Amino acid sequence: MNELYTILQNLIDLKDNEWEMFSRFLKRIAFPAKTQIISEGNIAKNIYFIESGLLRAYHLQEGKEINTYFACDNQFISTFSSFINQAPSHEILETLEDSFVYELSYQNLTSLYEESRKFEKLGRILAEKNYLCLIDRIHSMQTKTAKEKYLEFIANYDKKIVLRVSQHHIASFLGIAPESLSRIRKEIVIS
Amino acid sequence: MNELYTILQNLIDLKDNEWEMFSRFLKRIAFPAKTQIISEGNIAKNIYFIESGLLRAYHLQEGKEINTYFACDNQFISTFSSFINQAPSHEILETLEDSFVYELSYQNLTSLYEESRKFEKLGRILAEKNYLCLIDRIHSMQTKTAKEKYLEFIANYDKKIVLRVSQHHIASFLGIAPESLSRIRKEIVIS
Repeated sequence: MNELYTILQNLIDLKDNEWEMFSRFLKRIAFPAKTQIISEGNIAKNIYFIESGLLRAYHLQEGKEINTYFACDNQFISTFSSFINQAPSHEILETLEDSFVYELSYQNLTSLYEESRKFEKLGRILAEKNYLCLIDRIHSMQTKTAKEKYLEFIANYDKKIVLRVSQHHIASFLGIAPESLSRIRKEIVIS
Repeated sequence: MNELYTILQNLIDLKDNEWEMFSRFLKRIAFPAKTQIISEGNIAKNIYFIESGLLRAYHLQEGKEINTYFACDNQFISTFSSFINQAPSHEILETLEDSFVYELSYQNLTSLYEESRKFEKLGRILAEKNYLCLIDRIHSMQTKTAKEKYLEFIANYDKKIVLRVSQHHIASFLGIAPESLSRIRKEIVIS
């Protein structure tokens, strides 16, 4: 839990008593690989901070899985659209590897917002970070070639995600055909 | 300014004294059509609430303008990525029509965040709304046909934007060739 404490200290200058307020709501859970934590049509009632592991969010498009988000150690994940709106999720949240996470419910997060300005600030900063991440993603989708998208991915994403998420999942995330990704990876190794 | 007051009351249950705190920072400005309010490479120092008018954000891609956002009466606009990071803007903010806006500086918004939890809440809600808007946009880019994208656009965007933004700007926003958009519009009128 130390990593989360450090992250919150850096983001919102958390004091010890505020950490106590926050941490009493956290529930540590072990999920084996391939667990569906949030299913399609269900409301995302929780946000997760990953202690260790690897997770993805994806949606189904005519039976095909389209990856929308990956996260690993010391990152937050949920199906955010459902979580923010407390509406049924179009996405599925799933562990790719055995994972330990800290779960925080929407209800408890809302009560933290009421308790201190610091937690509102945390909510704002996380929403802003998610927004900036999507802006970059759209910009990349609108303007980059397949190779540029992949180079950007390996430059910006956590090494664990780059190395351990399977190639077909990365291809779906980048909107590239798996064969193209395979060709690009060979080009990069050679050059 | 009444509309902004009503919007803030609905979003964060603003009290009269908080409205006074907020409104003292607003500066009303008239911009003629085709004014570049934020230029590429400059930092977006302000967010704007539109009293009346029509604005767009766009970036240049090999000399071509790619529209990323439209806003009209009673909506907020800036080049948000630059505004949030206080970093040079990749986008340009421009009036499409003569517009009256209320300007709020980043510096003053930050001081409002310090003054009351309500303003942090406002910041969080606006960031969340922007995030949800982008999620929908990415989902649409990943999964929709050109016709579906246009139908979604006319269903979800303010009538003023749908009716008064020129077709070539809408085509660039949706990532559709102008000829395709023209064909789709004819199909819709006929069917």
